[in-house]
Amino acid sequence: MALRAALRNKCGLSGLLSLRSSCSSHGRVCASPIAQQRNNSTSPKIKVDFDQSTGVAVMQMQSPPVNSLSLDFLTEFSIATEKLEMDKSCRGLIITSTQPKVFSAGLDIMEMYRKSPEHCGEFWKAVQEMWLKLYGSNMVTIAAINGSSPAGGCLMSIACDYRIMADNPRYSIGLNETQLGIVAPFWFKDTMINTVGHRTTEMALELGMLYNPSDALKIGLVDQLVPEDQVLTTATQTMTKWLAIPDHARQITKSMMRKPTIDKLTSNRETDIQYFVNFITKDSIQKSLGMYLAMLKKRKG
Amino acid sequence: MALRAALRNKCGLSGLLSLRSSCSSHGRVCASPIAQQRNNSTSPKIKVDFDQSTGVAVMQMQSPPVNSLSLDFLTEFSIATEKLEMDKSCRGLIITSTQPKVFSAGLDIMEMYRKSPEHCGEFWKAVQEMWLKLYGSNMVTIAAINGSSPAGGCLMSIACDYRIMADNPRYSIGLNETQLGIVAPFWFKDTMINTVGHRTTEMALELGMLYNPSDALKIGLVDQLVPEDQVLTTATQTMTKWLAIPDHARQITKSMMRKPTIDKLTSNRETDIQYFVNFITKDSIQKSLGMYLAMLKKRKG
Amino acid sequence: MALRAALRNKCGLSGLLSLRSSCSSHGRVCASPIAQQRNNSTSPKIKVDFDQSTGVAVMQMQSPPVNSLSLDFLTEFSIATEKLEMDKSCRGLIITSTQPKVFSAGLDIMEMYRKSPEHCGEFWKAVQEMWLKLYGSNMVTIAAINGSSPAGGCLMSIACDYRIMADNPRYSIGLNETQLGIVAPFWFKDTMINTVGHRTTEMALELGMLYNPSDALKIGLVDQLVPEDQVLTTATQTMTKWLAIPDHARQITKSMMRKPTIDKLTSNRETDIQYFVNFITKDSIQKSLGMYLAMLKKRKG
Repeated sequence: MALRAALRNKCGLSGLLSLRSSCSSHGRVCASPIAQQRNNSTSPKIKVDFDQSTGVAVMQMQSPPVNSLSLDFLTEFSIATEKLEMDKSCRGLIITSTQPKVFSAGLDIMEMYRKSPEHCGEFWKAVQEMWLKLYGSNMVTIAAINGSSPAGGCLMSIACDYRIMADNPRYSIGLNETQLGIVAPFWFKDTMINTVGHRTTEMALELGMLYNPSDALKIGLVDQLVPEDQVLTTATQTMTKWLAIPDHARQITKSMMRKPTIDKLTSNRETDIQYFVNFITKDSIQKSLGMYLAMLKKRKG
Repeated sequence: MALRAALRNKCGLSGLLSLRSSCSSHGRVCASPIAQQRNNSTSPKIKVDFDQSTGVAVMQMQSPPVNSLSLDFLTEFSIATEKLEMDKSCRGLIITSTQPKVFSAGLDIMEMYRKSPEHCGEFWKAVQEMWLKLYGSNMVTIAAINGSSPAGGCLMSIACDYRIMADNPRYSIGLNETQLGIVAPFWFKDTMINTVGHRTTEMALELGMLYNPSDALKIGLVDQLVPEDQVLTTATQTMTKWLAIPDHARQITKSMMRKPTIDKLTSNRETDIQYFVNFITKDSIQKSLGMYLAMLKKRKG
Repeated sequence: MALRAALRNKCGLSGLLSLRSSCSSHGRVCASPIAQQRNNSTSPKIKVDFDQSTGVAVMQMQSPPVNSLSLDFLTEFSIATEKLEMDKSCRGLIITSTQPKVFSAGLDIMEMYRKSPEHCGEFWKAVQEMWLKLYGSNMVTIAAINGSSPAGGCLMSIACDYRIMADNPRYSIGLNETQLGIVAPFWFKDTMINTVGHRTTEMALELGMLYNPSDALKIGLVDQLVPEDQVLTTATQTMTKWLAIPDHARQITKSMMRKPTIDKLTSNRETDIQYFVNFITKDSIQKSLGMYLAMLKKRKG
């Protein structure tokens, strides 16, 4: 059933990786007129609204066109999350997207295509950092998934405590790396196993499956579906319920559940980076990425 | 869905811990006129009827008002279980309650409120012992859950081989520790993961969720629902089916499934006790327990 | 529910182990006129048709009456699988049966009844080898389960990547070892946990449960049910979809999912063999096997 669902969705595959829009700068946090239009904005790619009265921050990913997880984006994400983590008055974090139809399209392919091993390594470290920050957060984290969420976007979602997805059959979510000829690393896999179990993960990863919201709910990849315009309000309501639990008890419990999975990466970060760099810089893999890029460009054109 | 269910049940929360009735003695097995009314009674808090012809013992928890797991209760429980375990003619154990509406309300809060570290340590050792005896039993163990079963009562249930619950929507079951500001230890968590999987456990423990029978069945926290007056008869019928399997093959299989989880505690009992004592004797935790006690008293009054 | 299903199925129990037909030779691959009737046949017990144009091999188990996993059968199976594994043009393997009503009845009881410890050890090593080859295969492996598949037949099925079963309520599948007084070893258990999770495995193994196709689908022991005459065509169609994924990415992913489970056996093969030999040569176990054999003979007569 799941297999059939995946294949049904295949044509809707919006892709694991996506082209960054236009920004070619590697500066981490650059001033931006858009960012300054709002009081709480901390960067051009990530906008954070923190409500002191509720203790809840809403993080809006606003990197056109599809919130690709570029090095810049990831760095801003980790800085913003770290800031909130340090602020004891911030107890909950809701993550959502301002981009139409997409939560996040996943890792930015341009950060690993024809890039130096050093750059690839720096990029991968930033991907690790994003996951470590999110999966290990003491805050209650809720993903308000108001669009498609393949690959890295899916990872970001399953690193949260709770997932609410827009009930739009055109959206999809999943770790679809193998469809592009690349491989989800062990900590993507571990996070997925912790969410949907071993067998579902095995088939989903081998086939690079993308699930529509209804199938994602069925296998437990998301926790709840709501109409698209209610994703954020439902996240806010759900947050209230999670925050009714005493923080310290919830945090110790969360850590007990997630620490073994986190420790596996923290004690192997360098090895994991080396493995990624060796893999992604292979000629055959670069060729696959090139073909994928060409396909994306043709689709746009 | 599970979350909504938990929140729906919240008002019905009968509590993780409960006041012991009146007994303040710490003597382990004290004579009791009630106990002697029945042939097989071994103690005032636990009544055991062992049927030699079937090889099945029925253990009735009869400690008013709510079968709180006090030090006395736990000690009696472990002695009774050990006795049956040593008796090679006893192959199956059914656990149920004589108290209306409750299977067991869980750990007795009075054993950890304003008590010495020594007392808390002794108490915690008895909790460990109860779980070790039950989860590692060579007998077929069936929980006949004829009432609510929060926290320690839930632990007792999921330590059995099979769970039959009364189909009464007013009853609930779950590890709701975080709702009181305390934390289910790792072996509660492991037992729950072995029963309902990682993701369900994560959310259930973080939110301290209590499930009504129907939701408990859906997530696999119990195996079967029957009308309230058929819980014990169904347990007896089910036992017959389990006893049709050759003991030695079933026991080796059970041990293979459970030994790794048991070993984690047996090789860390002292550390686990120290951790509990340090946690529970903290001022902030004692304050939480005090507030909970006051709330319980008010509710009664 | 699962329990009730198992008990319903009990009368349909076709057995974990079965009598080998007539062959008493221990020669591994002996010439056979039947085998030579077809071009691709490699042995009397296993027929392999490899289609170079699709890269898919179909392996038909054709050892009457019930494809018992005898030492000869297992040896042929491992040789045939190894051959395909070495052939880089072979990317997918479909396993099915030519015998009516049965996929495989499991381990051949005659290989462990009144046999020398040496023989039992050699036999067990062949069982290990079959599983290692199949569970660790780089090919896409699909079980086309066109009949009952107890015990070793179930193991073979769950070692594949995908399971399609004939939707015939008279067929059953499961690890029913305990029903015969023997025990599924840890790597049978691990494979089952990886397929259906911890709790379902615990109950299934303790009770030696056999599931009809509908219940097997419900718990995830098989992935898909189709009418009996469509099992093989569906397997072929499904294979096409799996082969659409780039081999190297799928293989790395598969290895990441399965290697820890495989390593547990490869680093303990000798211990596991010794454990099996000690167990199976016990008087009490031999007596159980003898009674089971007598029962099988009576049923035939």
